[in-house]
Amino acid sequence: MQRIANLLICKDGKVLLLKKPRRNWYVAPGGKMETGESVINSAIREFTEETNAIPINPHIKGIYTMVIEENGERIDEWMLFTFIARDFEGTPLHETKEGMLEWHSVEALHTLPMAEGDRTNLLFAVQEQGVQYGTFIYTPDFSLIKETIQQSSEGELNNG
Amino acid sequence: MQRIANLLICKDGKVLLLKKPRRNWYVAPGGKMETGESVINSAIREFTEETNAIPINPHIKGIYTMVIEENGERIDEWMLFTFIARDFEGTPLHETKEGMLEWHSVEALHTLPMAEGDRTNLLFAVQEQGVQYGTFIYTPDFSLIKETIQQSSEGELNNG
Repeated sequence: MQRIANLLICKDGKVLLLKKPRRNWYVAPGGKMETGESVINSAIREFTEETNAIPINPHIKGIYTMVIEENGERIDEWMLFTFIARDFEGTPLHETKEGMLEWHSVEALHTLPMAEGDRTNLLFAVQEQGVQYGTFIYTPDFSLIKETIQQSSEGELNNG
Repeated sequence: MQRIANLLICKDGKVLLLKKPRRNWYVAPGGKMETGESVINSAIREFTEETNAIPINPHIKGIYTMVIEENGERIDEWMLFTFIARDFEGTPLHETKEGMLEWHSVEALHTLPMAEGDRTNLLFAVQEQGVQYGTFIYTPDFSLIKETIQQSSEGELNNG
């Protein structure tokens, strides 16, 4: 099963997004975990490979089960791990082999073209405390069929 | 790739552990994610199936890449998701088909027989704020060859 890690930088009210050339949809930079890699290292490595910038203190914001269904049958399933960082080192590229890198306002996440599940996830990552979980079911063309989301926050330590 | 979710209840200074019959090693109750399931639902379902109790407000504490190596070759790899809850509903069973359920002090996590990576993970879950990530490499007999761990905490929201 594929494991994908992506990472959203949010600094000074702006987020760094990758515009993918095929449909001009926006995503957070990221990509496939490698065998034996930890999920946070995947997110850092993929982000750095795609942007030339290094995220500072990334933190997990979402753990998602992604499903593709066609004619009612599950034809693919993978895990998506979404991280956020509030700062970075280096200067992000403007263009990479994956697409254009652009800064947009947080508010633009509501309206930029993207997979609807990504919109849910990126808005949560930027605006909410805690971690979000869920299952997103898409058509092969990435029309969202169904999303089921949950969230949790760290409680107080009370193990004494 | 297999995905395993487990959940540690920690209440009044005690943790609920499952003693597996084969080696009398202790684990947090848990098991395999099902297709299309969210990871938090897996943790709740597996915990409830194994204990007859329902965790309240579980929260992710660890995301781990687990690797089995034999003669220097990777022969298995899976993801482990560890949750904590500080309270539960219902009365946990004493014995299940998976083994005996026992309450132990948090301190006992340092000494009870268990896989060494599980010790690292359960102590983190109970005692530390934030989320831990890592890769654990084991022999087929669950001798720990190498662990690499990292952690992160939620920063302040500063997206304004």
